[in-house]
Amino acid sequence: MTRVTLLTDFGTVDGYVAAMKGVLAALAPEAHVEDASHDIPPGDVRAAAWALDGYWQLYPPGSVHVVVVDPGVGTERRALVVSAAGRCFVGPDNGVFSRVLRAVPDAGVYALRIPADTMHRISATFHGRDVFAPAAADLVRGAEPASMGESVADPIVIVDREPARDGGVIRGVVAHVDRFGNLVTNVPGSWVAADATVRIGSATAKVVATYGDVEAGELLALTGSRGLLEVAVRNGSAAERLWTSRELEVHITTAQPEPLPAGK
Amino acid sequence: MTRVTLLTDFGTVDGYVAAMKGVLAALAPEAHVEDASHDIPPGDVRAAAWALDGYWQLYPPGSVHVVVVDPGVGTERRALVVSAAGRCFVGPDNGVFSRVLRAVPDAGVYALRIPADTMHRISATFHGRDVFAPAAADLVRGAEPASMGESVADPIVIVDREPARDGGVIRGVVAHVDRFGNLVTNVPGSWVAADATVRIGSATAKVVATYGDVEAGELLALTGSRGLLEVAVRNGSAAERLWTSRELEVHITTAQPEPLPAGK
Amino acid sequence: MTRVTLLTDFGTVDGYVAAMKGVLAALAPEAHVEDASHDIPPGDVRAAAWALDGYWQLYPPGSVHVVVVDPGVGTERRALVVSAAGRCFVGPDNGVFSRVLRAVPDAGVYALRIPADTMHRISATFHGRDVFAPAAADLVRGAEPASMGESVADPIVIVDREPARDGGVIRGVVAHVDRFGNLVTNVPGSWVAADATVRIGSATAKVVATYGDVEAGELLALTGSRGLLEVAVRNGSAAERLWTSRELEVHITTAQPEPLPAGK
Repeated sequence: MTRVTLLTDFGTVDGYVAAMKGVLAALAPEAHVEDASHDIPPGDVRAAAWALDGYWQLYPPGSVHVVVVDPGVGTERRALVVSAAGRCFVGPDNGVFSRVLRAVPDAGVYALRIPADTMHRISATFHGRDVFAPAAADLVRGAEPASMGESVADPIVIVDREPARDGGVIRGVVAHVDRFGNLVTNVPGSWVAADATVRIGSATAKVVATYGDVEAGELLALTGSRGLLEVAVRNGSAAERLWTSRELEVHITTAQPEPLPAGK
Repeated sequence: MTRVTLLTDFGTVDGYVAAMKGVLAALAPEAHVEDASHDIPPGDVRAAAWALDGYWQLYPPGSVHVVVVDPGVGTERRALVVSAAGRCFVGPDNGVFSRVLRAVPDAGVYALRIPADTMHRISATFHGRDVFAPAAADLVRGAEPASMGESVADPIVIVDREPARDGGVIRGVVAHVDRFGNLVTNVPGSWVAADATVRIGSATAKVVATYGDVEAGELLALTGSRGLLEVAVRNGSAAERLWTSRELEVHITTAQPEPLPAGK
Repeated sequence: MTRVTLLTDFGTVDGYVAAMKGVLAALAPEAHVEDASHDIPPGDVRAAAWALDGYWQLYPPGSVHVVVVDPGVGTERRALVVSAAGRCFVGPDNGVFSRVLRAVPDAGVYALRIPADTMHRISATFHGRDVFAPAAADLVRGAEPASMGESVADPIVIVDREPARDGGVIRGVVAHVDRFGNLVTNVPGSWVAADATVRIGSATAKVVATYGDVEAGELLALTGSRGLLEVAVRNGSAAERLWTSRELEVHITTAQPEPLPAGK
């Protein structure tokens, strides 16, 4: 009943994902393989780290999370096996595990030795099939992460911009834009007072508890499903409205905004 | 071996679907979770109702169908658990279950009480993870729908346009356009005589039994996989040919069409 | 624990794929159904054959591979069940199994009799649900392919262009362009000397062992994950760079290219 999740930038049409599933079916037939996503934009390591952060802790201990967004395949980049909070992870050492490693400082991180029980000669281009899926199968069958490679002291961790608080003013950025056009910031919702004003680009959003507190089409800010402040439009897209993207700045003030100077 | 199907408008790239799978893996590890679709256009309740109608009855009794197309999350909309023909359903009360409820008039419909065994504080924005997946897990573990909430007498049911028959003339509309450009009407195929003429927009289609009865590229009308009359192009797209969409009218006459008046 | 894989051109939004899964859940509840892809371009039999070739042998013997890219549904095209190297296959007789049948000359090929235990009257348009999924369920439950239909001597096999060698010159074509813009040729990597020069369109690519042997943005040629020569751009897209597609010619010479004639 061990779950193995797959997160890749492969799409499905070339058969790469099914190849990984085939290897898992052959080497660990008892695993339940579940698709997380195969639609990560090609090579977008940050997007993979964001997606993974949304689910890895919800899966029960013992689950194995495979992440293959691997623009450095065929270079000297290391392959990692990570043990964190009872879950195991395999994937390239390029930052895809950044959010796991920041959340679990005592995670075990190991430089994966190429598994002996591969089904192919290891290709130069497809370690998802030839290295990571066999390693995941080993984990399903009970291998200890620490036995699978040498300990790594310096895995790549992408440092994201941190939000800052200065008196009544919080400064953050948009960390993720989701499918619905919600702008997820890096500001914890718990920092934001109920009467705060959120300024983003040239717009101002009201802080509310839930979508139902505003009319359809209205801009709002609320605490989203990861505990972060999100700017959204009820039944609409804030991304479309504000024509924005990741890294756009957000300013939050607990007092009312200053009146504009006279004459302006 | 209980199957749980997931139908959402989440896409996969944000990690929302995998979050729901993680909750199910934690709370009901014995379930087999299967993806129905995550590509429903955002907020398109009718599209979700259409898709669901294509598979729910094919799954065996005991299966649990989760539908999260939920533009009203965070408003007063109710969350439902439905029991119909031995299958269970969970999702928002916004019409996604319209076709199930019309097909099964004696379905049990209950306003889901928030499950006690959630893994998170219930977020304001993601009931798929915080409410519907835990409810599905409860159903997998044998909870009775009637024990999960108060009975609801007035669930939202979207009333679709009904086809009409008047002598030899049937009037219907295009109810769905599929990926192949087939125009699925709301007219039962059993209403349509073998020698009928189907007019749609400015075009006329021949009624046939199967694609093989016409040449490639030819417009035709036949009874499709849900028993409804479809207008299609063999090896082509009727939607592209007729530049049409949902709600376009279709007229079917069993006699030959009238000759045009002289002089016109 | 029998795996059933599904490869279709259905997309997921119309509910067709979930209908097939529902039939499998009802008729072979013990099967593990895994999605290979549902994003094959509509009717693209060659793309289906290519994808299938990437995974069918990796799945363990006993697995059942269902392929429904079936533009000829409703015509006289046969439905096939194939037994090859211990795996079983079901799908239309239109070339989707070309690569399997070329790889396994002694494969058993049978013209599927319509299974008795279908859940529907067989529709004219959706044999994935009404014929192929029930046949896959029969195979999961132990049916012998040879018992499911008459032997077929002449299944449709698409003949792809073969690469040619003439002295030091190899001529091939691009057989597949993948999501990353890699141009996969039909030339076995083992044919290509380490000092060979690869000309494609007006460009020349260096043969290397791995991406790490060139700088980011550089064009290269290497042996890819199926043992075929691929032309790629490190951290980029060769398809975008060369504005090419399937069937583009590739010339490989083991000597250095001739100097251009003087005066040019």
